[in-house]
Amino acid sequence: MRITLLCVGKTDFPFIVEGMKLYEDRLKHYCKFSTVCIPALKGVSSWTKEQIKEKEGELILKSLGLTKDKAAAKKHVVLLDERGGKYSSEAWASRIEKLVLLDKDVFFVIGGAYGFSDAVYSISSEKLSLSDMTFSHQIVRLIFMEQIYRAFTIISKEPYHHR
Amino acid sequence: MRITLLCVGKTDFPFIVEGMKLYEDRLKHYCKFSTVCIPALKGVSSWTKEQIKEKEGELILKSLGLTKDKAAAKKHVVLLDERGGKYSSEAWASRIEKLVLLDKDVFFVIGGAYGFSDAVYSISSEKLSLSDMTFSHQIVRLIFMEQIYRAFTIISKEPYHHR
Repeated sequence: MRITLLCVGKTDFPFIVEGMKLYEDRLKHYCKFSTVCIPALKGVSSWTKEQIKEKEGELILKSLGLTKDKAAAKKHVVLLDERGGKYSSEAWASRIEKLVLLDKDVFFVIGGAYGFSDAVYSISSEKLSLSDMTFSHQIVRLIFMEQIYRAFTIISKEPYHHR
Repeated sequence: MRITLLCVGKTDFPFIVEGMKLYEDRLKHYCKFSTVCIPALKGVSSWTKEQIKEKEGELILKSLGLTKDKAAAKKHVVLLDERGGKYSSEAWASRIEKLVLLDKDVFFVIGGAYGFSDAVYSISSEKLSLSDMTFSHQIVRLIFMEQIYRAFTIISKEPYHHR
């Protein structure tokens, strides 16, 4: 199973870079895992939120190798979105287990500060919400990687590695 | 307003220590904020989960300066617990705003790996759940401090400081 975590905007905080590295190392025992960051747009201070969202959407689709009109055949795209489905960690592990069986390339996408464009929604396979609370899109990277790691420990019936 | 974040077990990961420091520095602009860590129990490998939970509970009550029979008059104790209430970040900000008006010392308590003893539940003022998912009790510290910080930026109608 190949999992890609796609983020918009580079990771600003050194502590988040460090935490992501820790979970990336752990995840490599369970799947092919990589992160891809789309650099934040430059020279857009005069742009509206909608314009930024549209442009970021184009870059997300490009990075996924998809267009609005070409749905994902071998690609399963999951958006981290406040309107998405909510799971307990156990239910989430079952979901991951099913995705493994689908034998598709799975992309988890964490959007920018203004969310996703309609084009991105249109190519997505599903949406996932971590919480009713809004977390910083930087911290979400970390939380989410820990949840993927936790899911694999649940699937493998291993004790969670607290340290 | 004085806010104390009480945790069980020292923070293991350097990246979490670093992240907590960042949010602690930011929170000091809004309230008197401090964190207290109760050291993990030692020599307890032969103890049951229940015994560990009980002992940790005693240490939590001691640290809060409360006993089971002495309810909190000037202390408002919020447990981070999977069975707690869920809030959006905006609703959470309103809740924090109300706590400010109560003029009590507010303690947020993040338990150990096995949760809270009945004694701790009995002295708590309320319970809060961050997500249907179970997060590592280490990462919860970070997520939660970011949510307190986010709440104060919402209350103060300030733009969220993304960096």
